[in-house]
Amino acid sequence: MEIDSLQQAAELMKSHILHPSEVADYLEDTEPAEIAAFLSGLEEDQAADVVEHLDLAVQRELVDHIPRGQMARVIERMAPDARADLVKELDEEVAAAVLPLIASAERHDIARLVSYEEGTAGSVMTTEYAMVRTGETVAGALEELRRQAPGEETGYYVYVVGENRKLVGIVSLRDLLLARPQHLVDNIVNRDFASVNANDDQETLGEIFSRYELPSVPVVDDNGRLVGRITADDVIDVLGEEADEDIYHLGAAGRPIDYLRSSVLRIARERITWMLILVFAGLITSSLLQFYESYFADALALVILLPLLQGSGGNAGSQTTTVIIRGLSTGEIEMRDVWKVVFKEARVGMLVGLVLAIFAALRSLMVSPGELGTRAGLALTVGLAMIGTVTLAKTLGAMLPILFKSLKMDPALMSAPFITSIVDILTVVAYFTLARLLFFA
Amino acid sequence: MEIDSLQQAAELMKSHILHPSEVADYLEDTEPAEIAAFLSGLEEDQAADVVEHLDLAVQRELVDHIPRGQMARVIERMAPDARADLVKELDEEVAAAVLPLIASAERHDIARLVSYEEGTAGSVMTTEYAMVRTGETVAGALEELRRQAPGEETGYYVYVVGENRKLVGIVSLRDLLLARPQHLVDNIVNRDFASVNANDDQETLGEIFSRYELPSVPVVDDNGRLVGRITADDVIDVLGEEADEDIYHLGAAGRPIDYLRSSVLRIARERITWMLILVFAGLITSSLLQFYESYFADALALVILLPLLQGSGGNAGSQTTTVIIRGLSTGEIEMRDVWKVVFKEARVGMLVGLVLAIFAALRSLMVSPGELGTRAGLALTVGLAMIGTVTLAKTLGAMLPILFKSLKMDPALMSAPFITSIVDILTVVAYFTLARLLFFA
Repeated sequence: MEIDSLQQAAELMKSHILHPSEVADYLEDTEPAEIAAFLSGLEEDQAADVVEHLDLAVQRELVDHIPRGQMARVIERMAPDARADLVKELDEEVAAAVLPLIASAERHDIARLVSYEEGTAGSVMTTEYAMVRTGETVAGALEELRRQAPGEETGYYVYVVGENRKLVGIVSLRDLLLARPQHLVDNIVNRDFASVNANDDQETLGEIFSRYELPSVPVVDDNGRLVGRITADDVIDVLGEEADEDIYHLGAAGRPIDYLRSSVLRIARERITWMLILVFAGLITSSLLQFYESYFADALALVILLPLLQGSGGNAGSQTTTVIIRGLSTGEIEMRDVWKVVFKEARVGMLVGLVLAIFAALRSLMVSPGELGTRAGLALTVGLAMIGTVTLAKTLGAMLPILFKSLKMDPALMSAPFITSIVDILTVVAYFTLARLLFFA
Repeated sequence: MEIDSLQQAAELMKSHILHPSEVADYLEDTEPAEIAAFLSGLEEDQAADVVEHLDLAVQRELVDHIPRGQMARVIERMAPDARADLVKELDEEVAAAVLPLIASAERHDIARLVSYEEGTAGSVMTTEYAMVRTGETVAGALEELRRQAPGEETGYYVYVVGENRKLVGIVSLRDLLLARPQHLVDNIVNRDFASVNANDDQETLGEIFSRYELPSVPVVDDNGRLVGRITADDVIDVLGEEADEDIYHLGAAGRPIDYLRSSVLRIARERITWMLILVFAGLITSSLLQFYESYFADALALVILLPLLQGSGGNAGSQTTTVIIRGLSTGEIEMRDVWKVVFKEARVGMLVGLVLAIFAALRSLMVSPGELGTRAGLALTVGLAMIGTVTLAKTLGAMLPILFKSLKMDPALMSAPFITSIVDILTVVAYFTLARLLFFA
């Protein structure tokens, strides 16, 4: 739907034709001061709905344009996970000014949520859930659910807790509906349920939701006490971010940043680190060529065919690194598969290298071999170098990410360009060594 | 948990200690005949639960090891989306033998689901959902839900339909619980809800679930009739597959296949297409070098410094292509941003190129310039070529994927190695052209 004005957007949202996220989208290119004025015209509940769908960077700027007291009331009404994310972004002094104005229950809730480290399940969870105690009847449980904040989204499952909020099981709203009112929830509780620990790595969430096919899972602390809930749509966001990171790492493109809103300088800064690391690999390759200068001084044909080898080696390494890093990241490939994988890639490399060697050897027959060697010697050198380079590229492309991971370093730091650069260096050495043995012999 | 035997796995599942998906994991490396024998010892409901968590390839093999009649009863009990996926995989003659043995309601359900094209929302949805008609009272609706297959997972939302199953709104189980029994569902139905069309691209699902923060969405046909439901955990699976595809494309690694279970030949076949396409780029680069042979015959220094330029150009292109392709895929970058993006990358390229040019120029001062040029001429050539190459690489790395997309071709076919190869070719031309102007002058 086309929106013509802020005025219209507000109307459309009040009459439930526009979703707050659509209004937030419309506001993305508006100045913070104008957004603040717009939000002041809304009820605080609605303002909170819009704010939580804005980019975090925009949310943070807004805090400076909305009176502290009003902002505090908007924050109180935001979803628990959304408001914790915002508070984490605030400068210390701004947080110190706004937080005391927030109602005590919400303030404590925020403090609890922001205490979880970035990247843990706790940092993703919300504190909106439906909970009943063991020993409660079904009728009592339903009554309890009616009492618990009726406006909140608490989802399909009701968590059943015992002493000290210890999670003992879950029961679906459907089961509650189907059960006899006078029965105890203990009789229908499902004690065989999936849960996650608040300190678990968020990377594991996708597997759990996908495996157990769940709309949400309860989150417990180290003592098994219920502390939150994670919903599948939050996991969708997390997986998107994780995939972003994997992809950026593979392309040696730095960390994912808000591309369209970032300055040229900011983007360049994100990219230059890897470019500088990789240029050192290029300097090594250059020095090797300088070292082998006497070889090709008398046989320029060797130089002419070098890009063919380096290109194929780089591409072969990129392919393998891509597959292995993605496999390690999704869990398709595990550490115990390491030798199987390396051996497999070596054989794939030999096979692919053999096919490419034919092209490379044929091409080298079209070059004048120079003063010292023969055409056949050149073709043999180039062909064997191609097989060696591609095999080496695929073996290293598999081994290095696995080695990195076994050293507990992020395997995705092993980017495709990094593997390509290492292969470049090794290709030059292999090529001129073979040339000495086969071409100049 | 360690499982020691199939016997034990069956016991643990019956007593709800093991989830069917965990049993399925345990069975992954077991022979199909043995899995079939194991499943025969289970009740058909439980067998169905296990089968739907096995890899599709394993499921298909199983069909040949389980008596047709028994298989038909297992299929009847599988989740609608899972059994449709299996039937899609079956050979025509096997399907023709098994399908007639399946009960009519389930057979029609399968026929409906398999009719949706791969990659559409319809191909992802299930037909398990809770539905009530407009005009029903809250009490009547709850009664209706009790009647509708109590074993099935129908989720948090109840779909409200009018004439011809036309979807008019949704109501949450919570709202039903909180409403007065004698009220009409029409009074509490939410008519402002997210839904998807069965023919929508599955790529759009992640955005919808993430934006509206939903556990599931109803699926309608072109006439607005309710035909299914998509759950967030299915979207998690879809997003994983889409990310796999993006990543494989970026690395020019072919299509994602089941790596550990695929033969060396199968993997090599998946990889060789792009290797062959890219080797042609290498052949062009070689021919260009042959064309410029006279240039470097008298100035081997030019050759020594070439890898520095090609490497940096390739890496710069990889970075940009990675960012742009991911941005296009997630929707962060849209077609209307095209010129903004290309211009931004060009400026990032100039900035990064300038920094790298300093290293390259310093390095070229350490090389004997040969018979025709001076050290300063060489440093100037190499430095300017570096700026040009990196700028060109980033500009092309942004332009080509966008151009591809505007031609309705998959932008991810534009892999990082592809961009690298194109940049390789252009680098040689730019380098020797600059050399003629600045070095040999």
